[in-house]
Amino acid sequence: MRTPIITLTTDFGLTDHYVGAMKGVILSVCAQARIVDITHHVAPFQIAEAAWLIAQAYPYFRKDTVNVVVVDPGVGSARRPVLVQAAGQYFVGPDNGVFSLVCSREKYKARVISNEKYFRRPVSRTFHGRDIFAPVAAHLAAGVSASTMGKLVADLVCGPFEKPRQVTEHSWAGVILKIDHFGNIVTNFHLGDFPGLEPHQLAVSIGSRRITKLAQNYAESTTGELFLIPGSSGYLEVSVNQGSAAGQIGCKAGEPVEITVG
Amino acid sequence: MRTPIITLTTDFGLTDHYVGAMKGVILSVCAQARIVDITHHVAPFQIAEAAWLIAQAYPYFRKDTVNVVVVDPGVGSARRPVLVQAAGQYFVGPDNGVFSLVCSREKYKARVISNEKYFRRPVSRTFHGRDIFAPVAAHLAAGVSASTMGKLVADLVCGPFEKPRQVTEHSWAGVILKIDHFGNIVTNFHLGDFPGLEPHQLAVSIGSRRITKLAQNYAESTTGELFLIPGSSGYLEVSVNQGSAAGQIGCKAGEPVEITVG
Amino acid sequence: MRTPIITLTTDFGLTDHYVGAMKGVILSVCAQARIVDITHHVAPFQIAEAAWLIAQAYPYFRKDTVNVVVVDPGVGSARRPVLVQAAGQYFVGPDNGVFSLVCSREKYKARVISNEKYFRRPVSRTFHGRDIFAPVAAHLAAGVSASTMGKLVADLVCGPFEKPRQVTEHSWAGVILKIDHFGNIVTNFHLGDFPGLEPHQLAVSIGSRRITKLAQNYAESTTGELFLIPGSSGYLEVSVNQGSAAGQIGCKAGEPVEITVG
Repeated sequence: MRTPIITLTTDFGLTDHYVGAMKGVILSVCAQARIVDITHHVAPFQIAEAAWLIAQAYPYFRKDTVNVVVVDPGVGSARRPVLVQAAGQYFVGPDNGVFSLVCSREKYKARVISNEKYFRRPVSRTFHGRDIFAPVAAHLAAGVSASTMGKLVADLVCGPFEKPRQVTEHSWAGVILKIDHFGNIVTNFHLGDFPGLEPHQLAVSIGSRRITKLAQNYAESTTGELFLIPGSSGYLEVSVNQGSAAGQIGCKAGEPVEITVG
Repeated sequence: MRTPIITLTTDFGLTDHYVGAMKGVILSVCAQARIVDITHHVAPFQIAEAAWLIAQAYPYFRKDTVNVVVVDPGVGSARRPVLVQAAGQYFVGPDNGVFSLVCSREKYKARVISNEKYFRRPVSRTFHGRDIFAPVAAHLAAGVSASTMGKLVADLVCGPFEKPRQVTEHSWAGVILKIDHFGNIVTNFHLGDFPGLEPHQLAVSIGSRRITKLAQNYAESTTGELFLIPGSSGYLEVSVNQGSAAGQIGCKAGEPVEITVG
Repeated sequence: MRTPIITLTTDFGLTDHYVGAMKGVILSVCAQARIVDITHHVAPFQIAEAAWLIAQAYPYFRKDTVNVVVVDPGVGSARRPVLVQAAGQYFVGPDNGVFSLVCSREKYKARVISNEKYFRRPVSRTFHGRDIFAPVAAHLAAGVSASTMGKLVADLVCGPFEKPRQVTEHSWAGVILKIDHFGNIVTNFHLGDFPGLEPHQLAVSIGSRRITKLAQNYAESTTGELFLIPGSSGYLEVSVNQGSAAGQIGCKAGEPVEITVG
């Protein structure tokens, strides 16, 4: 049997016992599972950030991986637990939009998780990560079939999947998706969506700053100089050699960017 | 043979090589072990916090799990290394009270770890996590019997296990056990200890703030409103929907709370 | 077959998907691998810190461990990817000095990694951790021989490996290697390099502070008192019982220290 792989993406942080409790539940069901933390530092309750992060991570995992995402401000309310099958993998979490970007890219099937046989009992009203998502993921990893978990649904919650909006013939209005650990500014301009376009034709404006220089790697620029770079996931990024571009510009995730051509 | 599970709870943080070195020692003895980090962010030297965290985590792990706790301001002094057997699991760490809450809940046996055969040599005076606790845990995980590690002792150090103290017929004096990553305020009022009491009868006072509203889940309240909620581990908590209750009140772990009924 | 072990040391932090993506790539090649995080909190682009951390960690791992180090400001430029064999283990990363301390201690062989068969394709210009180092490490862990990866080279980049410099008959000029999570000040004065010297003969000066008291463990001193202590890796450290020595003195990694004898 193949070694099962389970990934975890949450906003739980690492100072509490919450992540550990989920792993204990998983290993109690499926001790063979390899558990990989994508991150537990999603900003609290930020569904869009979680949706983006899992969409960046899953392509590097193999078929049958079970991805658990728990950013869940509506835990204990009427929001449904869901299981999404896409790209040969499983996605388990709350039905609040965390799988929006995965589902905008891939053919998918979604099920409401309703088979309480696979829940940890009693189910707390505030920690479905431990009592529903972890054990369901572990049972999937152990070979229980997806169809056992609940019925197919056609109304999966999909949040806004913001792509840049074309404003004039030569300009798009975009947004900062994420500031990464190094201070790189990741825009929502995915080069794969603009096949005719050469990156060297582009300019990006953030606030009053306009960046036109294109680099192919970080070392190509002089220290301190802002430049555009095709990021490792295909999005256009603004970076600075050995420094924080976001710190230099003073910008945050969610803020607008303008992309112009020519 | 069952896959062995070892959990780690320390105040080592994640910026140094200390946790990695412990894992290297564990895997050198028992490469099959699954190692689960509960947290490495216990506040430095805070034995009571470590005692609380491991007590919240172990119930979700299966029989035979080896739990290593290293919050150890007395490392290298006369304080003893101990092995506690409780709830079908093993607990390995310094004899300074880190297992107080586990032992207040469970029938247990405690041994002083004295069999140097299972230590990493030479034993440093400042890092018993690497040289004593990690290798002993790994040997236990690999099947060495607990009795081999040292003799039973009856005088395990047990710190104050603060339960709320009844002050009047209708009020108890309690304490804030922990502020979690979201800013939820976890009190030491465990609902399981008060079987006759209905949560909706309760009020909690912290400083000049009195919280009386009870919610069953976070989404039930309007954003910004403080409420009481039975937490996922059974303790009464003060929360706020999509915000930090501790930030709003301005309180810290260790501060007093008053619980009143009726 | 022995369980393969892969360690990771990076400056990626834990808030992005970067570490998760590397692990996905590793497990896609070698699902049996045990992956151990040494740290992902190397200060961004600090090669010397990474070199020090991996040198502290590898001695606790067993033969055949594959250590991946990715602190890589020159990613995508002409700097070479390298594979170092030392101490019966493998070291995979950029040829920028991250293996300097390992190679100053051990007999080693170095190879330029050139066999693109083991790369993830296409290779991005900004994330060789995911596209080169992770898959090469995983193939090594899975049993591919080192010689398959590329040719031996004799010009591995080795950064300055600063040892204390003797200034007078009785004094050495040293440096602070690292402030650890507790605020312990790790100097570059390794006691193993001065076999004739007794620690109690030493004094350390940092700025205007001179520390002469020697302790064998943290608990030996009164709270608040600075003292010298032989650290768990053999370096002379300055500590304070249950407090931050670096915070008390106000010093940082890289600052000078003076060691005097007698």
